[in-house]
Amino acid sequence: MELFTAIQTRQSFRDFLGDAIEKEVIEKIIDAGIMAPSPLNSQPWNFIVIKSPIVKEHLFEDAQKCKANAIEISGWKWLEKYSVKFLKTAPVIIVVTGDKTKSGVDQFHEDGPVAYQHACAAAIQNMLLAAHALGIGSVWFTLFDKKSVKALLNIDDNEVPLAFVCLGKPAVQAAKTPRKPLAKKTIFME
Amino acid sequence: MELFTAIQTRQSFRDFLGDAIEKEVIEKIIDAGIMAPSPLNSQPWNFIVIKSPIVKEHLFEDAQKCKANAIEISGWKWLEKYSVKFLKTAPVIIVVTGDKTKSGVDQFHEDGPVAYQHACAAAIQNMLLAAHALGIGSVWFTLFDKKSVKALLNIDDNEVPLAFVCLGKPAVQAAKTPRKPLAKKTIFME
Repeated sequence: MELFTAIQTRQSFRDFLGDAIEKEVIEKIIDAGIMAPSPLNSQPWNFIVIKSPIVKEHLFEDAQKCKANAIEISGWKWLEKYSVKFLKTAPVIIVVTGDKTKSGVDQFHEDGPVAYQHACAAAIQNMLLAAHALGIGSVWFTLFDKKSVKALLNIDDNEVPLAFVCLGKPAVQAAKTPRKPLAKKTIFME
Repeated sequence: MELFTAIQTRQSFRDFLGDAIEKEVIEKIIDAGIMAPSPLNSQPWNFIVIKSPIVKEHLFEDAQKCKANAIEISGWKWLEKYSVKFLKTAPVIIVVTGDKTKSGVDQFHEDGPVAYQHACAAAIQNMLLAAHALGIGSVWFTLFDKKSVKALLNIDDNEVPLAFVCLGKPAVQAAKTPRKPLAKKTIFME
């Protein structure tokens, strides 16, 4: 798929068919992630590929709790309608973790490192584009409790779970999400 | 350019020819950024396009100070050799800022919002890929002092400058940065 077509037509899907995804396709998606730039080429990303219905059930239940908690702290009642059932139906979930010791000079900042997270986000964007070009729908999901996920997946202390990339054949066409145009987002300082 | 070719062959450049970049090309790059996903489709990104030699000189001088400070706090002597002269020679620098009020549920977390930064990082990755496909070299630069940049560019309180995307025709071929392979980065939990 042509790059600009991929960028312009990629969408988020939250309703997946159960069809398995071939390992070769999963690997192509991760290989795309790995090519993102990172501070000092530190490559802070790691990937956990989940297919197990039991593990997905745990992730779903954790997300349900996290959603309830989010509604309580935010007061966002509309969030009740937001179903996280796709955590059970997506045939593959790739948990992307970032190694917080692999950042740039920002690791010495008083707020702590964050550039490693930006690199992982760039890797995720590559993955979403790659999935799309391979006919796989995706959604970048973050409504989870980091501590629970770390415990469940036995993730190392230095690793921070940053996102679930949920993958599957789209079950229904997603609505296009509109964008504010460049003119509202850009200042040209000539 | 084909998506996977773009992802696999994009590199970071730090040595640019002075050739101007057409406005249409700059707009295509920003339009690619705008298509990134964001929490609740909040589109937290904003872009400041800089061509002015005077402004670039200021950004260069700020980065020089920031580098000296980074060497002091990190003890990384090798950083002395890292030239930031490309801030003066790149014909265009796009400063990407993120609106910290436009995040997801994470805005209620005690550590403060961060998902808006991830969305901006995804936008930046789209921009780097777009630039590459258009024959423009780029580097994702973050060695700057946020406060100085905010003051210099008169950036709103809610906006956080996250990166300079430096753009230009590459003056020399960059060395390929190696990547650790998927097998060292991935756990398959079947």
